[in-house]
Amino acid sequence: MSGTHPSRRRFLKKGAVAAGLVAAPPAALELTGGSSTVAAQVPAVADNNAIESVLYGRRSRFVTTTREIEGRSHYQVPRIRPNPQRPSAKTPLAELTGTITPTSLHFTTQHYYGIPDINPAEHTLMVEGMVDRPLVFTMDELHRLPFVSRVHFLECVGNRPSPRGATVTATHGRMGCSEWTGVPLSVLLAEAGVRGGASWIIAEAADGGRHTKSVPLAKALDDVLVAYGQNGEPVRPDHGYPLRLLVPGFEGIYNVKWLKRIKVVDQPYLSFQEHSRFLTPDPKTQRDSYDFGPNSVITRPSGDQRLEAHGAHVISGLAWSGSGKVSRVEVSTDGGATYQEAELVGPVLSKAHTRFCLPWRWNGDEAVLQSRCLDERGQLQPTEAEYAQYWGLTRGQLYGTIQSQLGHCNWIQPWKVGSDGKVTNGLEPVDVVVDVHA
Amino acid sequence: MSGTHPSRRRFLKKGAVAAGLVAAPPAALELTGGSSTVAAQVPAVADNNAIESVLYGRRSRFVTTTREIEGRSHYQVPRIRPNPQRPSAKTPLAELTGTITPTSLHFTTQHYYGIPDINPAEHTLMVEGMVDRPLVFTMDELHRLPFVSRVHFLECVGNRPSPRGATVTATHGRMGCSEWTGVPLSVLLAEAGVRGGASWIIAEAADGGRHTKSVPLAKALDDVLVAYGQNGEPVRPDHGYPLRLLVPGFEGIYNVKWLKRIKVVDQPYLSFQEHSRFLTPDPKTQRDSYDFGPNSVITRPSGDQRLEAHGAHVISGLAWSGSGKVSRVEVSTDGGATYQEAELVGPVLSKAHTRFCLPWRWNGDEAVLQSRCLDERGQLQPTEAEYAQYWGLTRGQLYGTIQSQLGHCNWIQPWKVGSDGKVTNGLEPVDVVVDVHA
Repeated sequence: MSGTHPSRRRFLKKGAVAAGLVAAPPAALELTGGSSTVAAQVPAVADNNAIESVLYGRRSRFVTTTREIEGRSHYQVPRIRPNPQRPSAKTPLAELTGTITPTSLHFTTQHYYGIPDINPAEHTLMVEGMVDRPLVFTMDELHRLPFVSRVHFLECVGNRPSPRGATVTATHGRMGCSEWTGVPLSVLLAEAGVRGGASWIIAEAADGGRHTKSVPLAKALDDVLVAYGQNGEPVRPDHGYPLRLLVPGFEGIYNVKWLKRIKVVDQPYLSFQEHSRFLTPDPKTQRDSYDFGPNSVITRPSGDQRLEAHGAHVISGLAWSGSGKVSRVEVSTDGGATYQEAELVGPVLSKAHTRFCLPWRWNGDEAVLQSRCLDERGQLQPTEAEYAQYWGLTRGQLYGTIQSQLGHCNWIQPWKVGSDGKVTNGLEPVDVVVDVHA
Repeated sequence: MSGTHPSRRRFLKKGAVAAGLVAAPPAALELTGGSSTVAAQVPAVADNNAIESVLYGRRSRFVTTTREIEGRSHYQVPRIRPNPQRPSAKTPLAELTGTITPTSLHFTTQHYYGIPDINPAEHTLMVEGMVDRPLVFTMDELHRLPFVSRVHFLECVGNRPSPRGATVTATHGRMGCSEWTGVPLSVLLAEAGVRGGASWIIAEAADGGRHTKSVPLAKALDDVLVAYGQNGEPVRPDHGYPLRLLVPGFEGIYNVKWLKRIKVVDQPYLSFQEHSRFLTPDPKTQRDSYDFGPNSVITRPSGDQRLEAHGAHVISGLAWSGSGKVSRVEVSTDGGATYQEAELVGPVLSKAHTRFCLPWRWNGDEAVLQSRCLDERGQLQPTEAEYAQYWGLTRGQLYGTIQSQLGHCNWIQPWKVGSDGKVTNGLEPVDVVVDVHA
């Protein structure tokens, strides 16, 4: 199995890398709605005995999974619309095991200004506003403060089950789960001394767009982190190097990357991003814009996969809740008529992805697979019909409405297994589907 | 901070990669006992907005940490001695955060035959011997069986506190911690049907050396995994792609990589590796050759680091036990005269690295920092003197003996902070130090 001649291998590797770096034309960056056309640009790894892989390990050349580049976009505002040179990308959920998302494959949302190239020796974090002692921390100073390491999911509000989602990456790929390490924001706020009357903080990024977000002070003092570590190494550039806010259980947009400034204030600010898109005068949009509700999705078998054989299979997926731990996951193989309890087969941690598994024998009949999550607060993940009824929405509104008029889309995602083993989306088709991320 | 001209960036990146791949001469592979001469060969990352980093994310160009290549070796047997083209490498513990070791930086021990280049479509696992139904599993079949995801440390028996260890990587770098996903071996053995009288299993690898190891059947039926996933993605080639044995809490050598065969037998085999080095007639070497005892080490501040300022610091490190969970970690700043309890600041999981932290004010005086671990079985990590006394060894024997005559080296590692802030090894010098890994 390792019989390839070394010099031949070296040639192959050199050629592959050169192709990836030199021959990749800007044309390949066109947002086509999928990664298939560009996946071949990731350098193949031909020789895991090479010295580079001793210093910093690599994947097998048989493993070529990539993130999926975001396609269509309905962004209307230039400062918010994606940068075509640096698009957003989704996590390939169906290909992953366990609960930790490999950092290289963790979804990343990018806006117009791309990723700043920050020298950590020059980066500082300012804490100011309604405090007794405004402070500026260097990265070295932050590293000398008490820290914690917490496993938390991070999800974009753009995730939504959809009849047109061909794969679980299409419907739920805007999320990941990492072990984050950093200083509790409460430690920094205690150092600065929060004044009476303060009720919110504003977090601001060092990117070209100066992304900002308002976070309730109670949350900031609870479990928010100023994170410099992700899965053991420094936070990567596309996740906010060298410093990001981590707001467990809240929408992705709260987790400000390239964190530069914390301002303590007495009201939420309508920052550019919030004003233009993420807050509207309609109070309905406020209904659950903080903690994500209980959620789960089957990643295997899931859309676009195929069962090749009758007999033993496993139904597996991820469950999570912005409110705390997952208590229980139930799986149905008959479209929700009956459920049975799945096993939680990995660590069960608060506000973290939780892996579930249920052995299943497939006899070749059609089946509709779906999961539902019960969290420790007693909240049960709703069906599409329950969700729509609760909020007084039609199906057309559910799928024809952009995110800013919709809440968290945590209804159940069914997958249909055909008698040929082909897995497709189990939601009924609708006429109009608007990209919820827009 | 992102003002570098794009074309300049592209030029830099292209140049760096080309240097890494083309200009790396075999001469750089000489085992010099450190990675400093070759670290520059890891391709620098100049542009995180490049399309390759969208598909598969990368580190900041300011983050250049690598594994440390193993240096000296006392291996006498050709099939066991390291392959100079593919040396072993240690985890850069002092640079890491949290408890999950980045897979690219996770230590890897390699023997003479290097890393096989296995096509998973052709790989199978055979279960045979004292079973009712000998079975052969393809990778696809294994993926259709019930699985679990568990966070576990993996440690080479070669880890040993040593007066000559300049850094924590030198003394303890032969370990890492990952989330492993795979099929419980008990599931496979139940499928095959273990016959009465069976008491051991033999695990065999698909590498050129056909590495084999005997594991007690009771352990195999307890928590051993046939793992295909590591930190969310397929196990990497240098960790056993596509399949490895994971034997939680046992010495690294039990965790057979590139797993090809499980044979159920009624006695441990003296396989080539075991016969030549890892088992000896001396019963003393059997004294604790299974579960690792309670252990811990301070990673910051640690050898070769320097405290640049008086005032607030944190003392942080890792604790672990092969027997279960860590119950408590205590830290001393006066060489063991007094201890105080550190906080466990991350997930506390069984047979997993556990991160601890203690705030500490450094006033500029000399200090000797050390930690000790108490595990849930009530076992307390010993000092060097306690360890030596218990086993009736002199200090010369402790450091002048190779691993096969020594047990697990879990005594306390002190680090000395000088008045200039320089951190050095706090163990008393000895004349003879033999590489315990030999």
